[in-house]
Amino acid sequence: MNLILITDKERGARGEVRLTDQRADHIRDVLKARAGDSLRVGQLNGPVGTGMIKAIQPEAVTVRCLFKDQTPPPRPSVDLLLALPRPKIMKRLWAALATLGVGRIILTNAQKVERYYFDSHVLEPDFYRAELRKGLEQAMDTCLPEVHIARQLKPLLEDELDELCPDTHRIVADPSEHNRISSALRGSKGRRVLLAVGPEGGWSNYELDLLKGRGMIPAALGPRILRTDTACIALLAMAHDVAADEVESAR
Amino acid sequence: MNLILITDKERGARGEVRLTDQRADHIRDVLKARAGDSLRVGQLNGPVGTGMIKAIQPEAVTVRCLFKDQTPPPRPSVDLLLALPRPKIMKRLWAALATLGVGRIILTNAQKVERYYFDSHVLEPDFYRAELRKGLEQAMDTCLPEVHIARQLKPLLEDELDELCPDTHRIVADPSEHNRISSALRGSKGRRVLLAVGPEGGWSNYELDLLKGRGMIPAALGPRILRTDTACIALLAMAHDVAADEVESAR
Repeated sequence: MNLILITDKERGARGEVRLTDQRADHIRDVLKARAGDSLRVGQLNGPVGTGMIKAIQPEAVTVRCLFKDQTPPPRPSVDLLLALPRPKIMKRLWAALATLGVGRIILTNAQKVERYYFDSHVLEPDFYRAELRKGLEQAMDTCLPEVHIARQLKPLLEDELDELCPDTHRIVADPSEHNRISSALRGSKGRRVLLAVGPEGGWSNYELDLLKGRGMIPAALGPRILRTDTACIALLAMAHDVAADEVESAR
Repeated sequence: MNLILITDKERGARGEVRLTDQRADHIRDVLKARAGDSLRVGQLNGPVGTGMIKAIQPEAVTVRCLFKDQTPPPRPSVDLLLALPRPKIMKRLWAALATLGVGRIILTNAQKVERYYFDSHVLEPDFYRAELRKGLEQAMDTCLPEVHIARQLKPLLEDELDELCPDTHRIVADPSEHNRISSALRGSKGRRVLLAVGPEGGWSNYELDLLKGRGMIPAALGPRILRTDTACIALLAMAHDVAADEVESAR
């Protein structure tokens, strides 16, 4: 936790928050903070500010939060369309995605996704929101990624995608492709980027055609076949790097 | 497993290998292969070839391996110097590192590394070699990364590093730096790259000075603070991408 994330609802009178969960444990046991110390706080989907510790008690830690600048951090400019990986992988991926920064996560079915993956508890909002918050606390961000779960790929692509991700530069990771991801990313021209990542066994040819039909440019990370989680991390890092390059060269 | 990895020792007469471990399970249960089928095989630190299944029995799978081209895949051009993360993180990182491709992994101590991390079973050669092999089987590579464990940073940097990683372009990840990793990588001019990644709490100023004294260029991945494993994956992916860019532009 490089930042203690609170919700608007938790803030009481005079901006005070009474923490009783793992955030209190973290302040007490990891930061070894005392009353009077200050720490970084963030309001979920809101600004980043400073917290002054008012009291540390066995049952609760009270922090007064001050947000001088009310502007929240910018929403990450990359969205992810991901064929749902095995629950064991997805469980660990939530926090990593939020740490790297993603605006929207769309999980979908594919031919090589097992149906039962969708019944896993890792897709329950209470579970994944807690994981995403851990990722934001690591990255010092407050912008909770929006999550959309689509059990059918074709209706998602045909009826929902343009509304969920309008005007995005779209790339589908395809290890058989010669076009490289970084080259494909450089074509975004400042627009939001939507990255599509397939299941472990890859998209079927039918699925690839559907994706290309929605404007997705196929591109490869390299000749090595990566596991879904490794590929997502590599792709998001590269997308943010190219976006930062563009911001710098536009100066 | 996108490739079945065998050792030179395992190959018997006429190139036949008798598999009894999880490789046999994989061929039987995941690939659902039959006698006569062929699959990709690789010889550890050797060439990639084709395996023809001779027999599938309850206790063993026999594969005849044929290596037409004796040239092994090229050794990955990136090395990693990593302040040892928590055993739970390191346990999962081995395979990911081998999947992305790394020539040498040097694990070291730092002020913010707990001493007991070095006593973990995840640093035992039998454990990490098995994990690294899983990563190679995923990536379809055969080149086992070399592992060096140094319990003291200063002697490592002063007495060993130049021998372990001669003539490398050296970069240390430092989130406080303005210089971006991708710019720093572009200065490698075709040399091997050595990436240094600090502990969760960061390198101390003293450690950073030591690293810079050994030619390490400080550079940041971006403003977000990543967990060690996420940072390693992002950095290796970017290093390989820049190296591929250089190979392409040299054509």
